[in-house]
Amino acid sequence: MAKELSKKETKVHELCDAISFIAQKGWAPGTGGNFSVVINDRPLKLLVTMSGVDKHIVTPNELLLINRSGKVIEGKAKPSTETLLHTTIARVTGAECILHTHTVWNTIVSMRESGGTLKLTGFEMLKGLQGVQTHTHEELVPVFENSQDIPALARKVSARLRKQPNMHGFLLRGHGLYTWGKSVAEARRHVEIFEFLFETYAQL
Amino acid sequence: MAKELSKKETKVHELCDAISFIAQKGWAPGTGGNFSVVINDRPLKLLVTMSGVDKHIVTPNELLLINRSGKVIEGKAKPSTETLLHTTIARVTGAECILHTHTVWNTIVSMRESGGTLKLTGFEMLKGLQGVQTHTHEELVPVFENSQDIPALARKVSARLRKQPNMHGFLLRGHGLYTWGKSVAEARRHVEIFEFLFETYAQL
Amino acid sequence: MAKELSKKETKVHELCDAISFIAQKGWAPGTGGNFSVVINDRPLKLLVTMSGVDKHIVTPNELLLINRSGKVIEGKAKPSTETLLHTTIARVTGAECILHTHTVWNTIVSMRESGGTLKLTGFEMLKGLQGVQTHTHEELVPVFENSQDIPALARKVSARLRKQPNMHGFLLRGHGLYTWGKSVAEARRHVEIFEFLFETYAQL
Amino acid sequence: MAKELSKKETKVHELCDAISFIAQKGWAPGTGGNFSVVINDRPLKLLVTMSGVDKHIVTPNELLLINRSGKVIEGKAKPSTETLLHTTIARVTGAECILHTHTVWNTIVSMRESGGTLKLTGFEMLKGLQGVQTHTHEELVPVFENSQDIPALARKVSARLRKQPNMHGFLLRGHGLYTWGKSVAEARRHVEIFEFLFETYAQL
Repeated sequence: MAKELSKKETKVHELCDAISFIAQKGWAPGTGGNFSVVINDRPLKLLVTMSGVDKHIVTPNELLLINRSGKVIEGKAKPSTETLLHTTIARVTGAECILHTHTVWNTIVSMRESGGTLKLTGFEMLKGLQGVQTHTHEELVPVFENSQDIPALARKVSARLRKQPNMHGFLLRGHGLYTWGKSVAEARRHVEIFEFLFETYAQL
Repeated sequence: MAKELSKKETKVHELCDAISFIAQKGWAPGTGGNFSVVINDRPLKLLVTMSGVDKHIVTPNELLLINRSGKVIEGKAKPSTETLLHTTIARVTGAECILHTHTVWNTIVSMRESGGTLKLTGFEMLKGLQGVQTHTHEELVPVFENSQDIPALARKVSARLRKQPNMHGFLLRGHGLYTWGKSVAEARRHVEIFEFLFETYAQL
Repeated sequence: MAKELSKKETKVHELCDAISFIAQKGWAPGTGGNFSVVINDRPLKLLVTMSGVDKHIVTPNELLLINRSGKVIEGKAKPSTETLLHTTIARVTGAECILHTHTVWNTIVSMRESGGTLKLTGFEMLKGLQGVQTHTHEELVPVFENSQDIPALARKVSARLRKQPNMHGFLLRGHGLYTWGKSVAEARRHVEIFEFLFETYAQL
Repeated sequence: MAKELSKKETKVHELCDAISFIAQKGWAPGTGGNFSVVINDRPLKLLVTMSGVDKHIVTPNELLLINRSGKVIEGKAKPSTETLLHTTIARVTGAECILHTHTVWNTIVSMRESGGTLKLTGFEMLKGLQGVQTHTHEELVPVFENSQDIPALARKVSARLRKQPNMHGFLLRGHGLYTWGKSVAEARRHVEIFEFLFETYAQL
């Protein structure tokens, strides 16, 4: 029991560290971005950042405990409406950590791409995505139209995740990146990899 | 009374923190930029940064107390001539904090825009501007011709603010951004949002 | 003996410092990059970073001791398969330190260059490369096709190094930079020089 | 006497601070850049940085005392051959501090400009240059061809400085910026202003 608690605490600290790293990089400006970690599988429970707070320093007790429908179980503040995307990703992929960033370059590539999919290939850095063994890998990054109707968006994301189970992340047009991992470290690495690839791809 | 003082002190510390954050970002280089906080409504009194000082560390006692005409009530140094824009914005909008940055990207978009208004739309980050609910919002950012005649400029700004009360900020061509908020935190968030949008828009 | 040990310890600390500097610059994102220092000439022994670890803080006991074939002599973790490039460079050039970075700009110039060689000339900063005396120097940077067959790549690198002994570094297309020096400080300076030159050249 | 010493010490600390700030900004990479402060007028004596050292931390006792011909009076290390440009600028302009940076954007604008002069106008930030009162000011920045013959270059610089006494700085093509001021703070502000203007101008 003490051990389980300690494992949870470790995850939470790793998440707070990852958020601080992301904020320092300028990837969550103006209170943007949402970040979560799964702390129970069945029933699904996540800790997620509050809506509208500065992400430079987020402490464990500023996180909200939510259930699989995105409702707050513990915590006084309002979660982001986008919390439903976090629970959707966790349910369909089994991810332990979900990170959502707003960056200059992910916004730019999402708006330049007129089709619904961005293809990234030929980069060694693709090997930083879980399971990818070669730079010849073709990473297909879905670009969804942005929407304020989050339940509708969550259904589209869910359908696409089931069709494309090897996906590592997706973009919302003019909005940002969602990526995840089976650990906080993996999700954080995926953020770094995708942001590197977007910045490079956009300026090739 | 002690409570009022403490509220004022809090605001001042928040302003000094915001200035330091802005300077670290490189958004107030070469002693550029002016920053103020309203500490009394009627009669209007603001604390404002001195002219010509480095903005990396600004302490509370380096701020000047000024009245609604931009004259110094307390403090030995010269305020910026642009202080009149701060008092104008405070009077017309009721803002509590006014922040003026000089950045590479706000200068670039202000000089590229040949018309008098920059339109920003389609960005999720627009929702970081107070009261904006959707990325389909059209934010109209006035671009005024730069001038060394600050009283004349202040009259133009005042007239435009009255015509367009939902404005969140404006640009001076080749010069920089003015934005504000009903708290220091809101004004600081507006700076982050606008700088993100300018950097993204300019490189789309 | 104590003196020899101390010299080795100094090198190792300099390497860890250099890695930290490189990571802070964003030049080894997402656990990317490999870094090594030679601690014995005959037989060749290098200390090299582990595969798949974050490079922001690397401590001396996280380095692996390897022999001239790239096999681990001391240490529990897996070295990068690219370790063979480190031993090849050390053997052919006599370098004491080899640094391999993954950056936005080295990736961009490596992918834009359709031929096999990038020519850099006319930059004062070329004089930061060991032995270069004038900005009119022509630095020829080989661009090898990227490959997951590291032994084959190492043979190509070895052959080219023997043909072009005054080389200071090379690029792998879509992958990154390898550079080196007769000391950790020299190799670190070469990274800074090359990254500056790539960033400048790409935006001329 | 104690007072004079103290004034000198202050200048030296301000110079070391300015160098550290410049290095942190990435404006003196790979041991690049030279920085000096005048500590005696007649006969002219300057303290100048050593050649080939990393500029992230420069302490007062790493500076070399040189005379008006650029010869070392005190200090064991080799000064940069470019020291002669520092003494030339000090003699002709009466500047107290001379700063020479190598940056991506000053290199880019120096190489794009085919003529011998870059004209900067229309920027509010021009007012950060000593004596400039309006954004309509036209700052003419000479662009000299780079050369390894420093005495010849110094003669050209000297002649141009006498012809154009209101100059605030000049560029060496493919090499970098020289700027100065009647105090360390003024010279440092000039670096910030010029680097801002070059970065903005190059991306307009």
